[in-house]
Amino acid sequence: MGGLIFGGFVSEQTVTNSGHAFDAAVALQPQADGRFSGHTSLAYANMVGPFGGITAAQALNAVLQHPQRLGEPVSLTVNFCAALADGPFTVKAHPARTNRSTQHWVIEVSQAEQVVLTATAFTALRRDTWSGPEHAMPVVPPPSNVEVPDGKARVEWVNRYEMRFVQGGFPIDWNGVDTGTSRSQVWVRDNPPRPLDFASLTALADIFFPRIWLRRPTLVPIGTVSMTVYFHTDGAQLAATGTGYLLGQAQAQNFRNGYFDQTAQMWNEAGHLLVTTHQVVYYKE
Amino acid sequence: MGGLIFGGFVSEQTVTNSGHAFDAAVALQPQADGRFSGHTSLAYANMVGPFGGITAAQALNAVLQHPQRLGEPVSLTVNFCAALADGPFTVKAHPARTNRSTQHWVIEVSQAEQVVLTATAFTALRRDTWSGPEHAMPVVPPPSNVEVPDGKARVEWVNRYEMRFVQGGFPIDWNGVDTGTSRSQVWVRDNPPRPLDFASLTALADIFFPRIWLRRPTLVPIGTVSMTVYFHTDGAQLAATGTGYLLGQAQAQNFRNGYFDQTAQMWNEAGHLLVTTHQVVYYKE
Repeated sequence: MGGLIFGGFVSEQTVTNSGHAFDAAVALQPQADGRFSGHTSLAYANMVGPFGGITAAQALNAVLQHPQRLGEPVSLTVNFCAALADGPFTVKAHPARTNRSTQHWVIEVSQAEQVVLTATAFTALRRDTWSGPEHAMPVVPPPSNVEVPDGKARVEWVNRYEMRFVQGGFPIDWNGVDTGTSRSQVWVRDNPPRPLDFASLTALADIFFPRIWLRRPTLVPIGTVSMTVYFHTDGAQLAATGTGYLLGQAQAQNFRNGYFDQTAQMWNEAGHLLVTTHQVVYYKE
Repeated sequence: MGGLIFGGFVSEQTVTNSGHAFDAAVALQPQADGRFSGHTSLAYANMVGPFGGITAAQALNAVLQHPQRLGEPVSLTVNFCAALADGPFTVKAHPARTNRSTQHWVIEVSQAEQVVLTATAFTALRRDTWSGPEHAMPVVPPPSNVEVPDGKARVEWVNRYEMRFVQGGFPIDWNGVDTGTSRSQVWVRDNPPRPLDFASLTALADIFFPRIWLRRPTLVPIGTVSMTVYFHTDGAQLAATGTGYLLGQAQAQNFRNGYFDQTAQMWNEAGHLLVTTHQVVYYKE
């Protein structure tokens, strides 16, 4: 709505005050009935419908913007019920239970009266306690020593991220041979860089391409059905991370009869584990 | 309801046709409005309220028993909003979206008109496809070579499981010293043995005591706030597993400012990975 336009025609969808495509993509308008309305973003388009990470970020954003919210996100689970159609959607976020310092949320995204996503989230006021990391950041070269792949990605959302693969990059030879491992390590940040927040961290938690393509390079159709994100961070640490890179590591644990899981961790450059995340993915053969 | 009584007074709650405490605990009665009613089980009592695993199993059972259910469980996320009071509860399970071979569920457990648990689940008709395990079962001694701890547990639900710890057993010396690791490996099954099904597997996924007690042995108050279970199995494989042991492995990834996560895997004795599971847990200091 009235964003500045530089050098010619730019659709309103990609212009906001900050000018970053991510902000435009997750923008929600409060409705009179307490729901929020949003719009899918072509900047984050996937093969069919939008990138799941951006849809998850939109769902969380309804909680982040909700007037009754207490505290910061600790966990989020999103269930992708159907591919979103390009166009508007509605998000309903409801605090199912509010305790003294914690809150449980139930979230639903719909299009044309059909549920396309269900989700739950947990927010809390956190206090300083004894803390201890256990899954240490792998020893890898710094981002500046790892190359950025050439060329433009086949799906648009991938162009919104700068990914420097340390290992387990996108397959080149789709020979279908079982590689025995599905591990990737990748330095990643928004492209162009954007200060990290809970919404963008949620989307970043979903940047790992489906592990089955790495384990057994065949371009089978896939679709995430459920994703969970645990946030081990807070606003102050996110601000300190800023536009720095995150090191992401992802690996599957099991592929069986149409579904596999993948589990991932994301550290900032200072070595703090910001997120652990898991998803279960459909695959067709 | 008319269960046989052997040798004196036995509360109705612990007697069913099968006679196993688990069946009594997860039993649900359909109500006229489509909801189910259940009752907490003293046999699965925890420090405060019931064992979270049994509550998760009760929530899933409403989906398993639902007349509209399509397929078998692939994923389940439960959010514990408040400790359940001993007594009756109501479960509402609603198919938010039904596709051709998949179904997304929204579940709510309430007591006295207050939400005590929210959950989502995904069920699917699975097909045979290329399959490949990736997280292999650790090499450990067979259950018969691993001792069962002596004595009765402090909380009742622990007595419902036979746990043979290979490593990372319940701490004995609560000295508060950071051990640097929170890994447990344990052979486990229902006590007395009971043929495995989706409901009991859900409860088994929550048998790992809080990792903070192992990482830094201090008996701080804790409470799981969200747990996700991915099922890599089906009814036929569960039947083949029967009353055999499962090898469970659990470890935390990060402890920070009041919340930590723990991630776990469970294999059957044949080495098949049946479940991967994750939870985020509150701790007080």
